[in-house]
Amino acid sequence: MKETMKAARLFLDWQPRKGSQLGPREVKGKLAQEGNKFWRNPRVEIVQESLPKIGPTEALIKVKACGICGSDVLMASFDEEGYTRYGYIMGNGVIIGHEFSGEIVEIGNEIRDFQRRAGKEVFRAGTPVTAQCVVNCGRCEKCQEGKFDECWLTEERGFSLDGAMAEYAVADLRHIYSLEDLTEKYSGEELFLAGALIEPLAGVYKALVSIAGSLNPGDNAVVIGGGPIGLAGVALLKAIGASTVILFEPSSQRREIAKALGADYAFDPGEVNLKEVVLERTRGVGAKIYFEAAGVAARISSDIDFLFKAGEAGSKLVLMGHGEEKATVSTETLISGYNVVVGSHGHSGVWRNVIRMVAAGLIDPRKTITRKITLEEAPEWLATLRTNKEEGKVIIVF
Amino acid sequence: MKETMKAARLFLDWQPRKGSQLGPREVKGKLAQEGNKFWRNPRVEIVQESLPKIGPTEALIKVKACGICGSDVLMASFDEEGYTRYGYIMGNGVIIGHEFSGEIVEIGNEIRDFQRRAGKEVFRAGTPVTAQCVVNCGRCEKCQEGKFDECWLTEERGFSLDGAMAEYAVADLRHIYSLEDLTEKYSGEELFLAGALIEPLAGVYKALVSIAGSLNPGDNAVVIGGGPIGLAGVALLKAIGASTVILFEPSSQRREIAKALGADYAFDPGEVNLKEVVLERTRGVGAKIYFEAAGVAARISSDIDFLFKAGEAGSKLVLMGHGEEKATVSTETLISGYNVVVGSHGHSGVWRNVIRMVAAGLIDPRKTITRKITLEEAPEWLATLRTNKEEGKVIIVF
Amino acid sequence: MKETMKAARLFLDWQPRKGSQLGPREVKGKLAQEGNKFWRNPRVEIVQESLPKIGPTEALIKVKACGICGSDVLMASFDEEGYTRYGYIMGNGVIIGHEFSGEIVEIGNEIRDFQRRAGKEVFRAGTPVTAQCVVNCGRCEKCQEGKFDECWLTEERGFSLDGAMAEYAVADLRHIYSLEDLTEKYSGEELFLAGALIEPLAGVYKALVSIAGSLNPGDNAVVIGGGPIGLAGVALLKAIGASTVILFEPSSQRREIAKALGADYAFDPGEVNLKEVVLERTRGVGAKIYFEAAGVAARISSDIDFLFKAGEAGSKLVLMGHGEEKATVSTETLISGYNVVVGSHGHSGVWRNVIRMVAAGLIDPRKTITRKITLEEAPEWLATLRTNKEEGKVIIVF
Amino acid sequence: MKETMKAARLFLDWQPRKGSQLGPREVKGKLAQEGNKFWRNPRVEIVQESLPKIGPTEALIKVKACGICGSDVLMASFDEEGYTRYGYIMGNGVIIGHEFSGEIVEIGNEIRDFQRRAGKEVFRAGTPVTAQCVVNCGRCEKCQEGKFDECWLTEERGFSLDGAMAEYAVADLRHIYSLEDLTEKYSGEELFLAGALIEPLAGVYKALVSIAGSLNPGDNAVVIGGGPIGLAGVALLKAIGASTVILFEPSSQRREIAKALGADYAFDPGEVNLKEVVLERTRGVGAKIYFEAAGVAARISSDIDFLFKAGEAGSKLVLMGHGEEKATVSTETLISGYNVVVGSHGHSGVWRNVIRMVAAGLIDPRKTITRKITLEEAPEWLATLRTNKEEGKVIIVF
Repeated sequence: MKETMKAARLFLDWQPRKGSQLGPREVKGKLAQEGNKFWRNPRVEIVQESLPKIGPTEALIKVKACGICGSDVLMASFDEEGYTRYGYIMGNGVIIGHEFSGEIVEIGNEIRDFQRRAGKEVFRAGTPVTAQCVVNCGRCEKCQEGKFDECWLTEERGFSLDGAMAEYAVADLRHIYSLEDLTEKYSGEELFLAGALIEPLAGVYKALVSIAGSLNPGDNAVVIGGGPIGLAGVALLKAIGASTVILFEPSSQRREIAKALGADYAFDPGEVNLKEVVLERTRGVGAKIYFEAAGVAARISSDIDFLFKAGEAGSKLVLMGHGEEKATVSTETLISGYNVVVGSHGHSGVWRNVIRMVAAGLIDPRKTITRKITLEEAPEWLATLRTNKEEGKVIIVF
Repeated sequence: MKETMKAARLFLDWQPRKGSQLGPREVKGKLAQEGNKFWRNPRVEIVQESLPKIGPTEALIKVKACGICGSDVLMASFDEEGYTRYGYIMGNGVIIGHEFSGEIVEIGNEIRDFQRRAGKEVFRAGTPVTAQCVVNCGRCEKCQEGKFDECWLTEERGFSLDGAMAEYAVADLRHIYSLEDLTEKYSGEELFLAGALIEPLAGVYKALVSIAGSLNPGDNAVVIGGGPIGLAGVALLKAIGASTVILFEPSSQRREIAKALGADYAFDPGEVNLKEVVLERTRGVGAKIYFEAAGVAARISSDIDFLFKAGEAGSKLVLMGHGEEKATVSTETLISGYNVVVGSHGHSGVWRNVIRMVAAGLIDPRKTITRKITLEEAPEWLATLRTNKEEGKVIIVF
Repeated sequence: MKETMKAARLFLDWQPRKGSQLGPREVKGKLAQEGNKFWRNPRVEIVQESLPKIGPTEALIKVKACGICGSDVLMASFDEEGYTRYGYIMGNGVIIGHEFSGEIVEIGNEIRDFQRRAGKEVFRAGTPVTAQCVVNCGRCEKCQEGKFDECWLTEERGFSLDGAMAEYAVADLRHIYSLEDLTEKYSGEELFLAGALIEPLAGVYKALVSIAGSLNPGDNAVVIGGGPIGLAGVALLKAIGASTVILFEPSSQRREIAKALGADYAFDPGEVNLKEVVLERTRGVGAKIYFEAAGVAARISSDIDFLFKAGEAGSKLVLMGHGEEKATVSTETLISGYNVVVGSHGHSGVWRNVIRMVAAGLIDPRKTITRKITLEEAPEWLATLRTNKEEGKVIIVF
Repeated sequence: MKETMKAARLFLDWQPRKGSQLGPREVKGKLAQEGNKFWRNPRVEIVQESLPKIGPTEALIKVKACGICGSDVLMASFDEEGYTRYGYIMGNGVIIGHEFSGEIVEIGNEIRDFQRRAGKEVFRAGTPVTAQCVVNCGRCEKCQEGKFDECWLTEERGFSLDGAMAEYAVADLRHIYSLEDLTEKYSGEELFLAGALIEPLAGVYKALVSIAGSLNPGDNAVVIGGGPIGLAGVALLKAIGASTVILFEPSSQRREIAKALGADYAFDPGEVNLKEVVLERTRGVGAKIYFEAAGVAARISSDIDFLFKAGEAGSKLVLMGHGEEKATVSTETLISGYNVVVGSHGHSGVWRNVIRMVAAGLIDPRKTITRKITLEEAPEWLATLRTNKEEGKVIIVF
């Protein structure tokens, strides 16, 4: 094991916008809950530094792959005044990256002790793993109720805590997942590519299965937006029995990926009439799930209203895409069709099921990868992806 | 049994508004799907006429009580151009009234035969009954799936078919419910008063229990609007374990009724700050159900948005009140709080449970009654209630 | 259209066993609710007869394919005293067969009228269709609540009413489903083979999705028994996201079919230790669904008890296989693991979703077919299948 | 604050039964997972000792009330060979008692720090509190999924860790609940009596609401056994809208308590025919929930089978009572009625809802108290309750 490592850290300048007030969870110069109100001039730098030390309940992980997420791109982007474009929790100088996989190098004493008492050795040197980015406090009322994604003091790996665009990363036992199940189907780099992409699938699984109550097998579904979240949605929906899945996405490369993941149809929303196409391809029945993964809820709300009315009752608009603030709903439509609008975020509690789905070959997230890069290329690609909306998943391979 | 009866019929003039088009389910001069686009000059008249004849699967019912519903008032109201204010299915010359109870006088041959084969005599002369107003076709795809409130060709008793503001009414076996369970706790007029008010409770039960998925016992709830639907909501929510129930309603008489039905608090929305009051009375937790029964979703949407954010995650706005068309939702709020907006209408499939709740004394809908009137007084009260928003339930007693 | 047709009718002798009493729904010499208590000497005969006449709400269907179900075999089987082995509703002299598809030849007047008013022409001469075998009364309390499979006076097509092992069959609009969705993927005989096998899938869909609440995608599942129901279970479970599906079935031919339908493993229960194999292949996690489709619940109950304890909590034993009467459960196991035992039958309300799944290619029920026969060969195959437990689906093609 | 305190400790002799093997979680002479296989000669002694010290995430609680649970009685009981009768986790020399309430005396540094960062001061000296007895590890896969009652290494306050039959007790922030909500309705001793009885309600809430999926409001329910769990079941079922609730319990005193808690009927099972009485009082409909809280599942299984068949479909037998190991179910009954058998234990995640129900007056658990005693009287009452099955809740008041 080396003594130093390379890591991609994001540096920021603390310049609160006029009128921004610090809450109890903001730390001047260090931590903001709404990044774009406090942080300016984001720059990603590759630094050479000592390896991190682990605590008694933590593991040191040799990172093997780390995807670039839309949030990473937003953090490193800035508006005309130079403020970061990312509006959630952000710390200064943290290692970014949270969609990752790697191999355990070392585990803390308490993990060893815990495993002995439990009679199960899940983690040891060499175990392939991934970890969730939600780092819940474990003590608040919501953690006490097992609702970790609603934690009062949640931190995020790769946002406010050191993440995984680095040769080594650290995670607590409470947030690590073994990828051992993947070894039957995958090995070497392929295993780690698949493993790094569990994270976006977990968020979509939570939204579509845990929160939206999923669809009944045989129902139709529509996905708005073919970025990594939308593509994960397409793959998951087909894997759980959606009969017709229709994607709307401007990029032809992403539409092709969607088809490889099982989409029955993939259209450029600029070239077709969304509502007509949906009605036609579903034989007038419409979809039961409209999965909004592009942050354009406001722009499509009249189409959804039309489809809620024209299609069968009991349809849901499931929101996951950040972006436009306000959407309009017609109360009469919801009342007459028992329609639902619901949102979701986070990913706690669903990881093992997602890992098993990938292990069983029900979803192959590697199909979303369009480019493998090195850690050194990450800063450039974080810049490129501000405007390039053609790539699928860009992933750092170590 | 008398040979003639008195009945309150609603007469209308067929004068389609400019641009209104007849669909396959409109019948010129007889039936409109959206009343306020076709019908003008509504007038309610008490007529003397022959008793109705029953078919082989129907029952003749001696009506004992019939409530006046907000929809009845709207049908008989008109805008500045004289068009009825009611926007749903309406036929010309039908007997109005659909919240009713009565006693069976005669049953058709096939009912007799059916009961013999089933070995159960549920209905016979003298059985106290009520009937649903949704008269589904029984043949379309939705009826085939048991989703009667989504019937393609639904008709409505008291709207497009003869209803119950009359001395006698007719209903098909498919839509009648025995009130025998009520006889343990109620008798005479009291039984029929309680029985006539099963209908509004059934609609609220469907919205809050079947569609919204109800609340977890111990959750808090807020009801917007203390008309008959809002009051039914208060009573039901307390009966199923809501801990704190807060009503907002301008009329002091209705607020008093709400308290008698179990509301923990009842406020005049003009005198308090809705969102502050809710947070305070729920100790910062907020409500899990916000039940909109006043048709003012648009007006309260920013309050709800605030409460969704300030209170615990997983709250629902349940829409039942017709009125303002468009409401605005903040997608970020829904996403960060797993919040839900959902609507409901209809009442099929839940009647026996509601009847048993009333029979067990869990809900006493008679507490909403503020006035008993005769059939002859009905036309005048239908007019009065256009502007009087202080009454609870006004009910015709025979 | 021909004036006569061939049909396979099942004739029986009315000889009530000692002590059997007629209930209100038994008709001497004609109809028994529990066949094996009344009917003796079953014989299937191919008869030549007039075409059936249709009523105003019925359709005449030219049958194209009709599968032989385990129930058909049981009805035509007999015990050592000559009594039929089938223990449910059975009429004398009815045309048997209920897993069928065909083409509409003629529709009744009221269907025509209904479609005109609804503005949708779903059925016309030439429409490919199938029909459910549950013929619910449409009038009882359970039909009134949309719970058709719980109908007080249910009859069964192919059991107490004329079925589909005939050149023509009749069904009411309430029970017919269009197979139009299949025409995108299938044509000619292939369409009708797939369409005839919607019925067993519908029963399994009801059990696993509607009643058992299905599994969470990524959960594992075990299927006991690889007859047509068990095979349908394998196909459905994989289609809705089960990660590892393990079948236990003695016949090697059926195990091969299971693998073609997606089973990850298929074992001969005589050659492996069920509980060890399940724990091993699920990496110690066990299954969330144990689907009993062989009628051997009693025999496997100690294995299930072991697996409930050894695997993760929250597992379900879902019973669909008729056979052994009594099973034993350990209350301590259920208490400590939140385990569930639940049963299911019937298939109302789920057909359109199943048809869409087959239309989308998520399940291909044709893979279960091991033999196509003619109507004339049906009596012989009904006899052969009493002992032959190697065949998959044997299907009559017209 | 005093420097010493009185406490009731349970001392045991480590004498493994022949054939008992130590697992990875047994500690010789200290801890057994199945008490009755290892521990002999239980004796409860009142000891005088130093006050406990708290860790940084713990609180010191001045105990105000502590109920005696059936498990406490079983631990202190012994069979003919002198082995304890309690079959679950038991440590030697621990302070027993887990149904308690008290007032915070001191909180650890990390709690203080946590509350500052969260901007909420939930706990401080004087706050009335209770705590759950499930002390989950917080690190295993099940804790990681928020399923704390399924923890791999769970310990139990009052069983393997020091409990609350003492003047002071200690609990970690992760397991404490504020009783502040109760202060609106209760004060002084009454508040602490109500607060100490949240625990048994929480277990019943988990079983009936979270696991069994509760009943639909208006359904009927039957409770078997009127001990503290059965009585909590009666109270909860009425509070969530059960229409008719029938209790079976031999003790007349307990039957009277049940009526005070809302039971519609309470019968001595030795004097009536359970199945006839249930059918009669539910007018032939039966119950949707049969809640087994007496540990007699095997003995009543044929009655339940009869009622499953005779009543409406979709009924559930919910098991919570430990006792007889094996019960028999008829697979045909479950299949034909969609019936469910399910078990439950534990209570994590539901406490705040239960506290709010008690705070709102929906359930008053003080009604189950039949005797208040002092700590010094506890050993004697633990002995008395081995045979006395007439008392409701016996509770220690400090």
